[in-house]
Amino acid sequence: MAADGLTVAQLAAAIEQSTAGRLVAAVRGDPGRHIVSVAPLETAVATQLGFLANPRYRAAAQASRAGAIVLDGASAASTFPTGRSEATLIVCDAPYAWFALAAQQLAPAPQVEPGRSEAARIAESATVDATARIDDFAIVEAGARIGARAWIGAGCYVGADAQVGAATRLYPGARLLAGCTIGARGIVHSGAVIGADGFGFAPLDGRWIKIPQTGRVVIGDDVEIGANTTIDRGTMGDTIIEDGVKMDNQIQVGHNCRIGAHTVIAGCVGIAGSATIGRGCQIGGAAMILGHLAIADGTIISAGTLVSRTIGSAGFYTGFFPLMTNRDWERNAAVLRHLDELRERIRRLEARLQRNDDA
Amino acid sequence: MAADGLTVAQLAAAIEQSTAGRLVAAVRGDPGRHIVSVAPLETAVATQLGFLANPRYRAAAQASRAGAIVLDGASAASTFPTGRSEATLIVCDAPYAWFALAAQQLAPAPQVEPGRSEAARIAESATVDATARIDDFAIVEAGARIGARAWIGAGCYVGADAQVGAATRLYPGARLLAGCTIGARGIVHSGAVIGADGFGFAPLDGRWIKIPQTGRVVIGDDVEIGANTTIDRGTMGDTIIEDGVKMDNQIQVGHNCRIGAHTVIAGCVGIAGSATIGRGCQIGGAAMILGHLAIADGTIISAGTLVSRTIGSAGFYTGFFPLMTNRDWERNAAVLRHLDELRERIRRLEARLQRNDDA
Amino acid sequence: MAADGLTVAQLAAAIEQSTAGRLVAAVRGDPGRHIVSVAPLETAVATQLGFLANPRYRAAAQASRAGAIVLDGASAASTFPTGRSEATLIVCDAPYAWFALAAQQLAPAPQVEPGRSEAARIAESATVDATARIDDFAIVEAGARIGARAWIGAGCYVGADAQVGAATRLYPGARLLAGCTIGARGIVHSGAVIGADGFGFAPLDGRWIKIPQTGRVVIGDDVEIGANTTIDRGTMGDTIIEDGVKMDNQIQVGHNCRIGAHTVIAGCVGIAGSATIGRGCQIGGAAMILGHLAIADGTIISAGTLVSRTIGSAGFYTGFFPLMTNRDWERNAAVLRHLDELRERIRRLEARLQRNDDA
Repeated sequence: MAADGLTVAQLAAAIEQSTAGRLVAAVRGDPGRHIVSVAPLETAVATQLGFLANPRYRAAAQASRAGAIVLDGASAASTFPTGRSEATLIVCDAPYAWFALAAQQLAPAPQVEPGRSEAARIAESATVDATARIDDFAIVEAGARIGARAWIGAGCYVGADAQVGAATRLYPGARLLAGCTIGARGIVHSGAVIGADGFGFAPLDGRWIKIPQTGRVVIGDDVEIGANTTIDRGTMGDTIIEDGVKMDNQIQVGHNCRIGAHTVIAGCVGIAGSATIGRGCQIGGAAMILGHLAIADGTIISAGTLVSRTIGSAGFYTGFFPLMTNRDWERNAAVLRHLDELRERIRRLEARLQRNDDA
Repeated sequence: MAADGLTVAQLAAAIEQSTAGRLVAAVRGDPGRHIVSVAPLETAVATQLGFLANPRYRAAAQASRAGAIVLDGASAASTFPTGRSEATLIVCDAPYAWFALAAQQLAPAPQVEPGRSEAARIAESATVDATARIDDFAIVEAGARIGARAWIGAGCYVGADAQVGAATRLYPGARLLAGCTIGARGIVHSGAVIGADGFGFAPLDGRWIKIPQTGRVVIGDDVEIGANTTIDRGTMGDTIIEDGVKMDNQIQVGHNCRIGAHTVIAGCVGIAGSATIGRGCQIGGAAMILGHLAIADGTIISAGTLVSRTIGSAGFYTGFFPLMTNRDWERNAAVLRHLDELRERIRRLEARLQRNDDA
Repeated sequence: MAADGLTVAQLAAAIEQSTAGRLVAAVRGDPGRHIVSVAPLETAVATQLGFLANPRYRAAAQASRAGAIVLDGASAASTFPTGRSEATLIVCDAPYAWFALAAQQLAPAPQVEPGRSEAARIAESATVDATARIDDFAIVEAGARIGARAWIGAGCYVGADAQVGAATRLYPGARLLAGCTIGARGIVHSGAVIGADGFGFAPLDGRWIKIPQTGRVVIGDDVEIGANTTIDRGTMGDTIIEDGVKMDNQIQVGHNCRIGAHTVIAGCVGIAGSATIGRGCQIGGAAMILGHLAIADGTIISAGTLVSRTIGSAGFYTGFFPLMTNRDWERNAAVLRHLDELRERIRRLEARLQRNDDA
């Protein structure tokens, strides 16, 4: 946290600079307003910044005691039609992004202090940048490479010949197994396992013969991987996670999957082997994606949906059983078990009525 | 295990005392019967205690060779109408609870031997109670506080300024990240991760900007958290788990959730961010609860159910696709894909028949 | 990897020997063809082996540049009707199994170098075979037994009196808790937790009383357990995983389950307590199996299916909501909520039409 906070003007300047001019905000009201942290509109106080990105929360914005509110021009006009507000208004075309960047300015990630714990085990043949940090009980195996300002947390494991890019952080207990790589500015949360064997067996006489999993996991830049998420190594080729992918906790990615750049995946999702997910997709929590299929760029999948076939064109797809009282469910599920018979009865009714009409 | 066991009379006295008189049992038969352990009715022998809480298992109770059986008055009357039984009968109004407490008496949790492994890393500024125990390769970071008789297992991680309450046990490899707290008498199983970043990103031009997750996870007293369960820290405020909550393995709790006191959650459940779950709820395995919604106190959710909207009044809710043979599923799913057309055909039939009748 | 590779003839001889004559292949074309690794038909080059097990990929086999292709007699006849091919053809009755065994020959598991890291903690009363290997920061507690050529990876935990069979490998961070056992030639991937407490509580006055979990997890030979999978110890008896079971990542197995020999379970599956799964079953990803039920030997369960009742006879069972566009889902789900009313309307139509016909 920037303990003393920043003025609205300072925040606006910093964000304009960090986005190379992409996010320019017009400030209405006092640009010298001092902001210490961000908060929801409902609880924000005079030293806090709130945001309004959804017109549904207009009343909350009007009632908010936030020192500053970031919102877009249309919302500013409709929410504060007189042009007057207690809060300093920060008007830009992507208020939620501006809010996120402001939060980063106000609570910057800690600087990585270089160093190697004496209680870590680092193989002689590993290459660890002088500016990297290796914490207690971490292990870096032979041939591994740790980039500049990377941070290998307590109890982490970096396998033989694995690579961690610059400024990437592995939280305590994350594991990157032999030969796997992650690019720059990544985050791997605690308990994640990158590079366990894919699940591949051939049947023979009622038993299962293991197919050696000799590929790797190759992860791009700016990727975040949630706690206890698992990504399996490829069988022959590699499992690939492209740049900018964001994955939540408890996700399972099978061998030889490819996940396209800037796709976001919510918690508890399962992705079976050899699935190819496009760029810029949004996968809802606990969705399950079967193997050997493809999902088009920009596809949105609802939570709890099982994707059982290739999705060739982007769209918004859903498939979960709607919530009911248990009593309603019992009645409806009983009918659902014989839905095809219901259709048949309708067919017969139609035919009968037609015969009657014809007669 | 209390190696020598206890008599039925000793058990009854101990349970009456530990529940401050809430659970008083009437013993029918030999109160001096020696009990060494608990067992299912089917396999129990003369030194074991069984229980009968469901009338369906009456025959099993009659046939059981258990030395003692705990059951309620109605079951005692209907199961042993002559009043005679091989087993000593222990009659009380909550037999399953009595059974659980008896099991605790017979297999008490091990006493925690105080001490700090020389192979643990404990920051100088951490406060560790003299009666606590810290095992091999555990880490306690700066400013953390470990309460009396707490047990930090092998390879556990307690982050900076985190707090572990009295008599709470972290099993090997559990992780409580910076600033998070758990109260007294808690249990955190292996591989659980408490306090990873919540999943929060703002879109900008097809990329995702991370929203810093600066809140904590705050856990009450008497909470149990299963193996490999993950609970994310809040974005701005905290994620809160109230007293007495019991969570099974592989559960995911998103940022800023609140889970009410004495709610039980079975394995593989996913709870998205900012959901508020009431007190005394029961959530079935692999249920998925979407974000920003509320569930009333005392609600019961079936396994595999996706909760997509707020549940304002307690009840029993269900929503999973019923099990079928694959052949039936294929037929029924095909109809389900056009269910609205089916309804339309019924409407037309009704209208046609009405016209015919009117004619 | 066998760096220099093997000829087709050498591979065939090795596989015939390792299967005690079960898998005998007829080689068509050059048996001296040098094979270095395996690959998919599409990308394979002259030093690689591909396989054809599904007639759908016949064209890929015809176009492949693989040095050798293993396939069965019927596929060989239909795919290469002239009997001529660029690739050496390896004809046998189980081509995928032959391919798997060839892959094992070409990429043999690394030999375990015996030894004990000085950074491991091994209790004096533990029994560790002289040919076993214990890596950095691993812990072997009192009374534990580690078999010949077993490999306990970095940061693993083997609890008091636990047992690891011969040639079994625990990958970094796997945990086998007190008293649990695994047989020979097993693989336990990173982050797996074997032997956490089962989820058992008795209600009393709105609170939950813990039932001590005093059983074990007992795992047979040739079992593979995926990353971050959890298997709970039994309440009173044991949780049992029979020989040859293969489990993927992120699976949860509740207390007192029994999983029959040679059953395969895909990722993200949940199995509630006291379920009994037969031998040779195949459970699809993210399926959920409720507690206290049984599944017959040889049953196949589709991904995403909730098994809510006992399956008494083997078959292929399915139960997931089919994928739709969100728009179609909204229309169909609305009807589904009133499916029983739809059936009632059909009944009334049928009755009305019958009355009309009778009139």
